[in-house]
Amino acid sequence: MASYLVTGSSRGLGLAMVTHLANSTPSDARVVFATARSQNPDLKELVEKSSGRVVFVEMDTTDQASVDKAVKAVEVQVGDKGLDYLVNNAGVGGFAPEWTEKLANLNEEFNVNVTGTHIVITKFLPLMRKGQAKKITSIASTMGSLAMAEPFGIFPLPAYKISKAALNALTVQWALALSSEGFVVTGINPGTVKSAMGGGDIADLTLEQGARGVIEALVKGGAEKNGKSFMIEVAGWENATGVHQYNGKTMPW
Amino acid sequence: MASYLVTGSSRGLGLAMVTHLANSTPSDARVVFATARSQNPDLKELVEKSSGRVVFVEMDTTDQASVDKAVKAVEVQVGDKGLDYLVNNAGVGGFAPEWTEKLANLNEEFNVNVTGTHIVITKFLPLMRKGQAKKITSIASTMGSLAMAEPFGIFPLPAYKISKAALNALTVQWALALSSEGFVVTGINPGTVKSAMGGGDIADLTLEQGARGVIEALVKGGAEKNGKSFMIEVAGWENATGVHQYNGKTMPW
Repeated sequence: MASYLVTGSSRGLGLAMVTHLANSTPSDARVVFATARSQNPDLKELVEKSSGRVVFVEMDTTDQASVDKAVKAVEVQVGDKGLDYLVNNAGVGGFAPEWTEKLANLNEEFNVNVTGTHIVITKFLPLMRKGQAKKITSIASTMGSLAMAEPFGIFPLPAYKISKAALNALTVQWALALSSEGFVVTGINPGTVKSAMGGGDIADLTLEQGARGVIEALVKGGAEKNGKSFMIEVAGWENATGVHQYNGKTMPW
Repeated sequence: MASYLVTGSSRGLGLAMVTHLANSTPSDARVVFATARSQNPDLKELVEKSSGRVVFVEMDTTDQASVDKAVKAVEVQVGDKGLDYLVNNAGVGGFAPEWTEKLANLNEEFNVNVTGTHIVITKFLPLMRKGQAKKITSIASTMGSLAMAEPFGIFPLPAYKISKAALNALTVQWALALSSEGFVVTGINPGTVKSAMGGGDIADLTLEQGARGVIEALVKGGAEKNGKSFMIEVAGWENATGVHQYNGKTMPW
């Protein structure tokens, strides 16, 4: 039975990914660990309707003790079969319109978006080594691309952009460290999705499109994707004329 | 009179840069603000022998109140002429040989290498706007290049690598934000220099070569370098066969 863990599952893309995993006709029997700092009504409803397929696990990714507890909670369920797929989705990002004049706090977003992800990977690694799939992905953003920074200069999100560049660096480090063990460690870029963080109403994709795209890219991505950050693929959006083409291509650093 | 500020000046490359600025025959009259958390004997001796050309300023780059004090100390000296050149050299980096098994602390090196630099740029910006040169650089490292991560995989410095990738992202953000004001914001990569942090005895360059290279690149670099991270130029090392060619070329992200 394939097992998935998705962080930041109480809303937005995280909730949509867990919903997709729970509802789509699976080619595999599966269990989905939906983690969040707390279980809100949306996530609770999803768990209750899932006939045991979705399991809520309380976890603050930035709190080592909390992650230790979550590892134990997952281990009780999966045993020696381990954890197959890990999706590091928990993240924050805030606008800082006057950031050149008023000091922007970079540490906070780095701590959640990078260090939190690092803690989760480190602590779930023993369980993932027991798993079959050995696939780890972190939600990447075009905002984290230095090569593409100029067209995105209009968005005053310095801390977010810097943290997402650093998250790509973290992905590369883990990819190199674990490749000899058969792991595939990637960044998957959902482009813009209609969530509070993903672009709101002007975004390209529905939450369902984004969620399906990430999960399909995660499952499909083999060793050729290790250490890469790449776009999801969405039917009809492969050659879109906006900033993003949803064609599976590797993003420039 | 051109003014320079170099952070992390008590040792290594920082001390060498201040020494170079103090001793080389300048085409400009100059004052050099050498900042460090404390004034050690080496820096004290340099200040005393400099006939007033080198001024020690106490500054912990990660401490906002300390940076505020340092800004005031510099302002008293430069007045309306402002500050011309800022070299963000203060940094840390530590080996973490078992980092995939034992949780590596990413926040600490990010705080010094990125957030400290961000605090210094933000708080010295008003003085730099009054300056003539308007050139800001941060010491970059090949370790921060995602494109070149594979050959450097043997060095277990995950926190350093991630922080230096993030520092490049910070450079790009400031470069875009200040380009319309005539600033040139860069990352300058000294390759490997014979300092405790720069590679020790097996490094390519002497401290003097590295220091001269950074200062020359800083002064010479025009708008075409804004937002770029590039190698220093060192006579005789332009076509070296090792990892680094000291040829002024832009580094890949």
